[in-house]
Amino acid sequence: MKLTVAWIGKTKSSAIQSIADDYLKRLRQYVEAEGVSLKDEAALLKYCGKDGRGAQRRLVLLDSGGKHLTSEEFARFIGEHCDRSPLPLVFAVGPADGFSLAALEHGDSRLSLGKMTLAHELARVVLLEQLYRAFTIHHGHPYHLGH
Amino acid sequence: MKLTVAWIGKTKSSAIQSIADDYLKRLRQYVEAEGVSLKDEAALLKYCGKDGRGAQRRLVLLDSGGKHLTSEEFARFIGEHCDRSPLPLVFAVGPADGFSLAALEHGDSRLSLGKMTLAHELARVVLLEQLYRAFTIHHGHPYHLGH
Repeated sequence: MKLTVAWIGKTKSSAIQSIADDYLKRLRQYVEAEGVSLKDEAALLKYCGKDGRGAQRRLVLLDSGGKHLTSEEFARFIGEHCDRSPLPLVFAVGPADGFSLAALEHGDSRLSLGKMTLAHELARVVLLEQLYRAFTIHHGHPYHLGH
Repeated sequence: MKLTVAWIGKTKSSAIQSIADDYLKRLRQYVEAEGVSLKDEAALLKYCGKDGRGAQRRLVLLDSGGKHLTSEEFARFIGEHCDRSPLPLVFAVGPADGFSLAALEHGDSRLSLGKMTLAHELARVVLLEQLYRAFTIHHGHPYHLGH
């Protein structure tokens, strides 16, 4: 399985970058994972083959209007994708002011990290932590139990 | 108004510390705020005067079993406290394995940062960002709109 965490815009905070890199490294114990910084939404849609050209990827948009899952449900969401589809999975955090309607229409799934609005750089770190947590849940690693 | 963000245990990650310090600094534009690292739950209860001695503070526990609020509702929660009570407000993030039942019984309120289980160091950063966001909402600062 291949997994990408994509975000729009450059990371301004070196502390955020450092935490994101750390979770990516931990994720790679379990899955082929990469972080991708994209210029704009058009670049994201192209990256996922939504422009009709290039390789297809399943695009999961992290958006306040998306479905709210617990960490266990999120782990199940990823497990079900792996069981059913050979497509690489892309989780995308939107720009500071959220995804446009056009991007939302092209997304294959829409999930929310919670009812609270998060700074988008922080949302990326939370997403990476949830992805890492999901794989530890799958592998029975005690991380999710607070250890 | 006085506001404290308390957590149990030392911060291991310098990147987390750096982001937490940055939000605390931004919070102080609006309110007298401090971050406090406490050894254990007993120290937290003592800090809030729950041992029957010392100054009383209102203790808000961040816990997965707490009430889920949007960022706007969280801002209102703080505003209502300021209107009704002169007590300093303490927001506390629990230890890695969550608060004990004894601590939950002593809390004055219980809020949740979302359905997903967050690493407790990350929970502190998310809490600080929500506090900063709450004050920008009160002051009509455009931060909450993504600017």
